[in-house]
Amino acid sequence: MNIAIIGAGYWGKNLVRVFYSLSDDVKLKYVCDLDEKKLAKIKKMYPDVQTIADANIIFSDPEISAVVVSTPASAHYELIKKTLLSGKHVLVEKPMTRTLKEADELVTLAKEKDLVLMVDHTFLYTPAVKKIKHLIENNELGKINYIDSERINLGLIQPDVNVIYDLAAHDISIFNYILGEWPSSVMAFGKSFITKGTVREVEEVAHINLEYPSGVMAHVHVSWLSPVKLRKMLVGGSKKMIIYNDVEPSEKIKIVDQGVDIDFGKENSFFPIYRSGEISIPKLSEGEALIAEAQEFIQSIKENRSPLTCGESGLKTVQVLEKATQSMRENGIKIYF
Amino acid sequence: MNIAIIGAGYWGKNLVRVFYSLSDDVKLKYVCDLDEKKLAKIKKMYPDVQTIADANIIFSDPEISAVVVSTPASAHYELIKKTLLSGKHVLVEKPMTRTLKEADELVTLAKEKDLVLMVDHTFLYTPAVKKIKHLIENNELGKINYIDSERINLGLIQPDVNVIYDLAAHDISIFNYILGEWPSSVMAFGKSFITKGTVREVEEVAHINLEYPSGVMAHVHVSWLSPVKLRKMLVGGSKKMIIYNDVEPSEKIKIVDQGVDIDFGKENSFFPIYRSGEISIPKLSEGEALIAEAQEFIQSIKENRSPLTCGESGLKTVQVLEKATQSMRENGIKIYF
Amino acid sequence: MNIAIIGAGYWGKNLVRVFYSLSDDVKLKYVCDLDEKKLAKIKKMYPDVQTIADANIIFSDPEISAVVVSTPASAHYELIKKTLLSGKHVLVEKPMTRTLKEADELVTLAKEKDLVLMVDHTFLYTPAVKKIKHLIENNELGKINYIDSERINLGLIQPDVNVIYDLAAHDISIFNYILGEWPSSVMAFGKSFITKGTVREVEEVAHINLEYPSGVMAHVHVSWLSPVKLRKMLVGGSKKMIIYNDVEPSEKIKIVDQGVDIDFGKENSFFPIYRSGEISIPKLSEGEALIAEAQEFIQSIKENRSPLTCGESGLKTVQVLEKATQSMRENGIKIYF
Amino acid sequence: MNIAIIGAGYWGKNLVRVFYSLSDDVKLKYVCDLDEKKLAKIKKMYPDVQTIADANIIFSDPEISAVVVSTPASAHYELIKKTLLSGKHVLVEKPMTRTLKEADELVTLAKEKDLVLMVDHTFLYTPAVKKIKHLIENNELGKINYIDSERINLGLIQPDVNVIYDLAAHDISIFNYILGEWPSSVMAFGKSFITKGTVREVEEVAHINLEYPSGVMAHVHVSWLSPVKLRKMLVGGSKKMIIYNDVEPSEKIKIVDQGVDIDFGKENSFFPIYRSGEISIPKLSEGEALIAEAQEFIQSIKENRSPLTCGESGLKTVQVLEKATQSMRENGIKIYF
Repeated sequence: MNIAIIGAGYWGKNLVRVFYSLSDDVKLKYVCDLDEKKLAKIKKMYPDVQTIADANIIFSDPEISAVVVSTPASAHYELIKKTLLSGKHVLVEKPMTRTLKEADELVTLAKEKDLVLMVDHTFLYTPAVKKIKHLIENNELGKINYIDSERINLGLIQPDVNVIYDLAAHDISIFNYILGEWPSSVMAFGKSFITKGTVREVEEVAHINLEYPSGVMAHVHVSWLSPVKLRKMLVGGSKKMIIYNDVEPSEKIKIVDQGVDIDFGKENSFFPIYRSGEISIPKLSEGEALIAEAQEFIQSIKENRSPLTCGESGLKTVQVLEKATQSMRENGIKIYF
Repeated sequence: MNIAIIGAGYWGKNLVRVFYSLSDDVKLKYVCDLDEKKLAKIKKMYPDVQTIADANIIFSDPEISAVVVSTPASAHYELIKKTLLSGKHVLVEKPMTRTLKEADELVTLAKEKDLVLMVDHTFLYTPAVKKIKHLIENNELGKINYIDSERINLGLIQPDVNVIYDLAAHDISIFNYILGEWPSSVMAFGKSFITKGTVREVEEVAHINLEYPSGVMAHVHVSWLSPVKLRKMLVGGSKKMIIYNDVEPSEKIKIVDQGVDIDFGKENSFFPIYRSGEISIPKLSEGEALIAEAQEFIQSIKENRSPLTCGESGLKTVQVLEKATQSMRENGIKIYF
Repeated sequence: MNIAIIGAGYWGKNLVRVFYSLSDDVKLKYVCDLDEKKLAKIKKMYPDVQTIADANIIFSDPEISAVVVSTPASAHYELIKKTLLSGKHVLVEKPMTRTLKEADELVTLAKEKDLVLMVDHTFLYTPAVKKIKHLIENNELGKINYIDSERINLGLIQPDVNVIYDLAAHDISIFNYILGEWPSSVMAFGKSFITKGTVREVEEVAHINLEYPSGVMAHVHVSWLSPVKLRKMLVGGSKKMIIYNDVEPSEKIKIVDQGVDIDFGKENSFFPIYRSGEISIPKLSEGEALIAEAQEFIQSIKENRSPLTCGESGLKTVQVLEKATQSMRENGIKIYF
Repeated sequence: MNIAIIGAGYWGKNLVRVFYSLSDDVKLKYVCDLDEKKLAKIKKMYPDVQTIADANIIFSDPEISAVVVSTPASAHYELIKKTLLSGKHVLVEKPMTRTLKEADELVTLAKEKDLVLMVDHTFLYTPAVKKIKHLIENNELGKINYIDSERINLGLIQPDVNVIYDLAAHDISIFNYILGEWPSSVMAFGKSFITKGTVREVEEVAHINLEYPSGVMAHVHVSWLSPVKLRKMLVGGSKKMIIYNDVEPSEKIKIVDQGVDIDFGKENSFFPIYRSGEISIPKLSEGEALIAEAQEFIQSIKENRSPLTCGESGLKTVQVLEKATQSMRENGIKIYF
């Protein structure tokens, strides 16, 4: 199977590295980018890959079965559409598109063409997120009350999307995955400081509040203007709680046996009883998420099935990003799905 | 000067300890509580203090100049009113009252009676918060863009107020103090899980979004249901940023010389330039905040002046707490002041 | 039972606080110190305690059953001796004495007089150290290979003993307790920098290497000149290992299911197999160690039995401190016991 | 300039990556290893590199100017000797050799042949170590009193050298570099647990104590059996102190303005005065140390000069490793150089 990668930027380079040495079946034939310097670097590292500036070469090459799109978000829609219309499977970096309408059209097109449309929600392939999903599914945490995520650091300010599209795309896709449901409402609050008043004004700091049908309350804090890099998520269950710190090299997940029960013995009495037991840090399997994801892409093509992070899941994420942005710009109004 | 303390609970015990040995001028005459066990403990530790169950003894004792109220919030209004009506100065634990209306009435009453009405916003007397105020005033941080605070842990669930009244009272008073302005709008999102459906239902987790007239965006996350104890505040200025971690024993404040500038050389170009310089951890003065606060109370009485955390500042905090609670219960609607 | 405390310094104040409100049976009658300011502070906090400058009042008061000695180490020997000779039980701050000879004499004297001689090795009453002892005794860690301890910070430089006597006394007593054996040899390496060349020259930084009969290798790093405060101990067992961080407020002990096995399948092959499983952080019981210790002192007197940290255990610690100091001053020579 | 790398193991792979894309002047012609699997991986990643199993091809190829030796330590001596005898420059992984005698012979041989003999003491090329050297040279820390290093983790147990040779080689080379002097004495204490009693018995945990002519006291703790990975160094100066934590992603160095002075006003008085000021975390330059090192190798060849980590410095490190091992096996006896 021959594949091509469009976009050799920050994340694209990782995709090139992974697909280059994925398996003997898969051959990375083209890397396409408009920036000659990036192509030169790729050529130096991988002399047997063809580096090209014109993506049409890929679409018209019958040897190519699948395309990986890793460009700025504003180019996703056109490139996915062309890829699907040329009869090739596609894996696209998150967020899939900038609007629900575009996402909808592409999901429909992929179905019609019977092609795999997969979104690069990498975190869903990490051992940490898989472990959290497993713990929730096995009812180890009890009823989930809330999820709270912080994804903040300095930069990288995107030129074509706001911080919600750039960073919260990760959190939304993780929430939806581990809870196994889509949110019922969203509200957001955010502002622009650095780009404010410029032609490229986008919100750089934002808070998103979500409700899920099961009653879970979720919150995401995203920022490009933070003095500290945090990748932290709390999951509060009625039996146990999780602290997920993705910046930790090895102790990413702490399972805290802790909670509150309330005794209402007499009418007016009120005795919260705080349980506080052992903390356990599970040993997570190793292995790079991006490799697992690339393998899922190839396998779903071979098996002609929907991948874990399919177009529909990408669409659901885009829907939240779009409505969160709308809420943020309309005084934080609550928007129902 | 003779003083009395009403309420010998969790925080009241600290007030007793501090006022007991504050200075030779100040004598702690009474400690009042309805719980005999608490009184017995006080008596054992401080045999020369009179422990009483009836607060009216205090109000009618002409020797008493000032009263410290450290009861559950629901009792504040009545006790402050009685104290002022009996011609005595009052220091009250935060939040001052549960409603703006009550706060308003008490501030007016104190003015009429020419008495000190002070609120126990202890954090404003900490070296850390004073340092942040100093840095902002001296323009070391540049224009302040945002403040973000997390004050979360397991418990202590209050019987008579929600988590916003209990915990966010600290953050709101700190924000107002270091910025030197009151917020112009508030929105909040919160839920009840443990007490849900009971007679004592209160929100246990909440997110509050605030706007200030100067353009600062502020956010507070408060929770009684967190697996981890956090007391963390980020202050993002255009020149420098602050990480304030109150849980750290000695390195509470980090000043990060970091920021982003954007170069718009040509029409469509977009080059964010990330500055990232030295981090400095200032040596903060030592000394317990509660002692500084108690001294401020005594001094403001002696000098017949308004204390730092005067009734008006307590009122402004209560106003935010009340409106945040209203927003939280009305779909997160934005409320302007 | 009436008791007296001699020495109201840094640690003495804690002992006063604890014994003052220990139980209704125990009455703190005297606090003795040469420093009038310290006595005045004690008097202000505890008006019903008699503050005195002459310890002989204690020794000659027949009402006094037991004495707590919390002076600089150089005064311990004389004060313990006088206490025992006056027929009273004694609890002495660590280190018990400065020489093995003195310790030996006092242990013998206490036996002859049938009095309790107890040493204030507080750490042995902490839930963390008790937990480690429990884990070792129950063979949860397998065979213990090594213990490694760091106890370093800035100050407090003692005027009459070196850093080994001041800080390593804790580690040695912990090692002996959790291993249930005394060391067979000691070597030490240390230097004086700040006090070097003065009349009060003592070593301020030191490393101690110990061997135990069971084969355990132990190391202690103590320093008064460290830029960071560390209280960290590693216990390496063949099955599991412990990270004990006493500076952590709640997660003091981590039990790490980790180790190495080596496969020697063929003559020259060498395949280390690294096991790396879950980490668990047990919930430790709460309660102040000093209270537990004070209760043990009172109980051992009442029950006429040897306390956990008896004179013999104090003597064994002094022996190590003395020989470690000797080694340090004789080129690090290994000294056998 | 054509180069070859012998050894494609854990560290060798990094050397391949760096030398492969170092500059246009330098061409990585051969990678040599006895393990076919390792060669196959190299071939897949770098198709234009020749992978060979026989190192003699390298020695007899006149196109090759320089060789990088990255094999187990036991093979270093023979390979360096052959390289030099074939007239090629050599960069060798640390430790240079297993004995001072071998190191001596090779340094002499390189001088006779006028070839560069460089040792891969990578840490000396890191921004953190360079910063510490700079601070010491500029007298920012005052007189250096001590250095204390911990380099501990689980594994990787080496088959042919003990933990001192494997890990302390880093610390010794750093100490010598930042102090600008060689140690005057060494003592060591260490044991074998996992490999004990086997044909491959080597010490897996060790403590090394060093003295330097200037009076600096240094200590290194190395271990393959630690439950936690630490790479921490303290440098204690009379004016300031450094905490160097190499595991931190960005805040590797903290400069602590802290110290003790002692006032001996009257004969017997003793007042230590503790200074405790600001902590600053400098922004370190970025850039991979291994690239800087590779460039230094190439430059020193081109400029026909001695590199920073020359053979002599490698020899001085080997000398300490050898004597530390001897001390460790002879009851910790102090050995002078």
